[in-house]
Amino acid sequence: MKLTYTGKTKDVYELENGHYLLKFKDDVTGENGVFDPGANTVGLSIEGAGKAGLRLTAFFFETLKEKEIPTHYIDSNIEEGTMTVKPAEVFGKGLEVICRYRAVGSFLRRYGMYAEEGQELDAFVEVTLKDDDRQDPPISEDALDMLGILSKDEYSVLKDLTKKIGNVVKEELAKKEIELYDIKFEFGRVGDNKEIVLIDEISGGNMRAYKNGEYIEPLQLEKLMLQQ
Amino acid sequence: MKLTYTGKTKDVYELENGHYLLKFKDDVTGENGVFDPGANTVGLSIEGAGKAGLRLTAFFFETLKEKEIPTHYIDSNIEEGTMTVKPAEVFGKGLEVICRYRAVGSFLRRYGMYAEEGQELDAFVEVTLKDDDRQDPPISEDALDMLGILSKDEYSVLKDLTKKIGNVVKEELAKKEIELYDIKFEFGRVGDNKEIVLIDEISGGNMRAYKNGEYIEPLQLEKLMLQQ
Repeated sequence: MKLTYTGKTKDVYELENGHYLLKFKDDVTGENGVFDPGANTVGLSIEGAGKAGLRLTAFFFETLKEKEIPTHYIDSNIEEGTMTVKPAEVFGKGLEVICRYRAVGSFLRRYGMYAEEGQELDAFVEVTLKDDDRQDPPISEDALDMLGILSKDEYSVLKDLTKKIGNVVKEELAKKEIELYDIKFEFGRVGDNKEIVLIDEISGGNMRAYKNGEYIEPLQLEKLMLQQ
Repeated sequence: MKLTYTGKTKDVYELENGHYLLKFKDDVTGENGVFDPGANTVGLSIEGAGKAGLRLTAFFFETLKEKEIPTHYIDSNIEEGTMTVKPAEVFGKGLEVICRYRAVGSFLRRYGMYAEEGQELDAFVEVTLKDDDRQDPPISEDALDMLGILSKDEYSVLKDLTKKIGNVVKEELAKKEIELYDIKFEFGRVGDNKEIVLIDEISGGNMRAYKNGEYIEPLQLEKLMLQQ
């Protein structure tokens, strides 16, 4: 197998059968040695972070498979810290799709004139460009279409899938009395018919989760969800 | 008549018949003494700037009236520097609606990964919140609807009107061999049926215009458009 991409928190290998292998690393994003899932730089390395992220990701991708929601997931090997996936083409140079249930973070920084901190939002979907140099700017459906990144039809599919998947995660967390505030996803086109499917991962680093009003750190989330 | 609002570049008076009078001031937005139409602070005062802005605004609002495109305009008095308008309710605490024909300014700062500087854009419309403290953040159709600022139906009307009015301005400038790169508008609801109409002004301070590849300063634009 051939290393094709070295990411901040994962390495990507191409397998001989055309599938890809994602190797989850212990590197986590953050700044000044503090873990921050929203940061664009690798801040520190935490032993076990890779496998914890993979375990939670595998749990959610298996759950989505049961619900027949399309993803790039094939299988995973927790001991090796690897996940096998179908090859996917990203939109443009990569998008992040955010689903929000509470007004916090960048939503509040932008729309604080109209929203109270923590106000409920009804699975509000927004898209940002993956562009570290420009602080991942938000982008509208019209701009995505005009710049040739995502067609209007694709946007509609993306938005529906985002709400569906967000709600699956929200319900799974609720079973452990954890509340999902927001979550970010990545999507890609898979196969000859360019089907839009969820790619990348679903772990603590992708979401803000709270229990009894307290923010749950990503590694703690994995423990609460899978080890109790 | 009663002073009801003191703006950066205009004062607003309520008239006894229910109409409003806008008094165009010589104060212009900018920073450190340099005129910058996109700035959020008053930078300096230029003698004649108010009347120049009013003249161009009256010219465009009269042109729109002939084309039966709805605005808040009733009439103007250039000598007095005033314009009489219908009362309008703004959306939320105020929106700016931008129509782009070339990729420059904040569009390029956000989407420079996908657009070349100066690239043609097909009357691309985007909306930003008027919020100096948050640097006038862009906002999507979905967010406008969810936050109760503008319904989806209103957004559709707003977008159509923006393209129509943008094209009227673009054509008028083209008659003087001037090219419109982008322009920002404000809209409001007028009358019992809450009709969406153009409000505020259309002057050099609202647009980026170029002639033979050179940027035209707002006051120069008024001269080129009306005094030749």
